[in-house]
Amino acid sequence: MTVAEEFEAANVKYAANFDKGHLPLPPGKQVAVVICMDARVDPAGILGLTEGEAHVIRNAGGRATDALRSVIISQRLLGTRELVIVHHTDCGMLTFNDGQLRDIVKKETGHNVDHFAFLPFSDLEQSVKDDVEYFKKNELVLDVPISGYIYDVKTGKLNKVV
Amino acid sequence: MTVAEEFEAANVKYAANFDKGHLPLPPGKQVAVVICMDARVDPAGILGLTEGEAHVIRNAGGRATDALRSVIISQRLLGTRELVIVHHTDCGMLTFNDGQLRDIVKKETGHNVDHFAFLPFSDLEQSVKDDVEYFKKNELVLDVPISGYIYDVKTGKLNKVV
Repeated sequence: MTVAEEFEAANVKYAANFDKGHLPLPPGKQVAVVICMDARVDPAGILGLTEGEAHVIRNAGGRATDALRSVIISQRLLGTRELVIVHHTDCGMLTFNDGQLRDIVKKETGHNVDHFAFLPFSDLEQSVKDDVEYFKKNELVLDVPISGYIYDVKTGKLNKVV
Repeated sequence: MTVAEEFEAANVKYAANFDKGHLPLPPGKQVAVVICMDARVDPAGILGLTEGEAHVIRNAGGRATDALRSVIISQRLLGTRELVIVHHTDCGMLTFNDGQLRDIVKKETGHNVDHFAFLPFSDLEQSVKDDVEYFKKNELVLDVPISGYIYDVKTGKLNKVV
């Protein structure tokens, strides 16, 4: 059984009790969250979100550069006016550097990926500051409130950085 | 009050009842999900996920090209061996084309973004097929099971495409 088949079975139960079919497309709280893809991170739980409230953009690390396309669409077409960035403790992005992952990919696939930026970081707090700054300075991003946090996967706590 | 401050207040309650501090970094179900950032889409609910089970990559549309960096990290460093793509009905990506959004951004910022691919689509089913194919053909992506679905925001149902 694939995981996809497990998802299909779980969805039957979700749909049976579904009562959110009336929600509008633009996020009710006019906010976009950029947060890591990590399996232990449940953005809805951590931030108290319910359906219809926020755009949730997730990628490896919760990196800003990788979220730019989505943020432009969120702001220019769907009216969000605040950004929240969340990185987290024990992140996979702290465990490697570009050179190491490029070597792994080249060894396993035969392809040279020296042009590829995997966006790891060695300083968690600095990575949050860097990503807030990236959005603040990017002229394609609106001048809106931008906050940056570190989520602690051991305690469930959100700690403000910027 | 910013939305970020609301998130901080909500997180105090979440952390007070938090009991997931023991989970390991690699996703327990060895799966990565690529799904839209849409506010009405709750991946954990829709797919029956709990903390620690899956990487959840989210961007505008749930597009594969924009998820490639995260998928490589997920597979090569964190052991995921299945991919699930979920697009959804009433998606914002169905409401514009690249030329229109480039015009909006240029008008509002003064910057020419003709080089920028916003990855909209006009055919929802085809967009899922295209993204499954993108991963299947991409030589940096492992040869793993890849499924594609359309989530119906009116009914809560997940409908299989590929």
